[in-house]
Amino acid sequence: MKKGLLMVFTGNGKGKTTSALGLAMRCAGHGLKVCFIQFIKGSWKYGELEAVKRFSGLIDFHVMGKGFTWKSEDMEKDRAAARKAWEFARRVIADGSHHLVVLDEFTYLLDYGMIEIEPVLETLAGRPQALHVAVTGRNAPAGLLEAADLVTVMKAVKHPLQAGIKAQKGIEF
Amino acid sequence: MKKGLLMVFTGNGKGKTTSALGLAMRCAGHGLKVCFIQFIKGSWKYGELEAVKRFSGLIDFHVMGKGFTWKSEDMEKDRAAARKAWEFARRVIADGSHHLVVLDEFTYLLDYGMIEIEPVLETLAGRPQALHVAVTGRNAPAGLLEAADLVTVMKAVKHPLQAGIKAQKGIEF
Repeated sequence: MKKGLLMVFTGNGKGKTTSALGLAMRCAGHGLKVCFIQFIKGSWKYGELEAVKRFSGLIDFHVMGKGFTWKSEDMEKDRAAARKAWEFARRVIADGSHHLVVLDEFTYLLDYGMIEIEPVLETLAGRPQALHVAVTGRNAPAGLLEAADLVTVMKAVKHPLQAGIKAQKGIEF
Repeated sequence: MKKGLLMVFTGNGKGKTTSALGLAMRCAGHGLKVCFIQFIKGSWKYGELEAVKRFSGLIDFHVMGKGFTWKSEDMEKDRAAARKAWEFARRVIADGSHHLVVLDEFTYLLDYGMIEIEPVLETLAGRPQALHVAVTGRNAPAGLLEAADLVTVMKAVKHPLQAGIKAQKGIEF
């Protein structure tokens, strides 16, 4: 019996989104369909955007919601955008036409209280049996970690920005 | 001034090789050349191997050395294979014709004492200034961590194999 995994990549280190990207690439290599939903607008840059084009028809890519942060002045507007973004993801998950669904930077919506965790956990628990779901982002809530089959915490031991080195093409973006 | 980063992805959690794969994809998306050197034969499976084909001419992929473990009965043979593998990597690094060189699962060679760390650190320190190098694998030695610009420790908080769930296509391989 195949069981779809719920995977969580969290922590403050580099490698969360990059891991999900590698995972998507691995699935697509098998000819399996991936839906990559990005919950922070603009977090994907030119490199990733161009790269996924090579997997057209295999990696569906969607940008949802808002810009770099979900903490704006207009909380109500944020909440509405978050609900809409989650509603889209919920339909993709329930639909089950992908091998893997990636909810990239999704934890921010939960962490900032933009959406409730209970309906998220219900949707994940009730997903098609074989569907793999990967969730990335800092501060993954305890309920999500409990529900997950795999949790990796990416711990930043050293980060070049700490040493005053700027973000660089092909590495950070 | 562009400074190539030395990045280390270590720890016992999932996401080390997958991060490097995502990083390679990001570079290739920019049209930048990557050399991906795998130090454990057979650790890359069908998914990754097929996926990198889509980046032909941008991601060079090389498999070096031995199978799943470097701990065989014939230590001398292992040492010779390790030296040969490292010699290949050393030339690729010094050559500087790539934007990023990935030494995937390389730490095992150091951890098992197959090669000395000093010449490795010398080669890395003397590499072309703009060249990024990513090293993956468990138990990265202290000297490598000290030399690195970026270190992420992937910590396995939960792993599906612990729960008796088998490795699955498109996810684990």
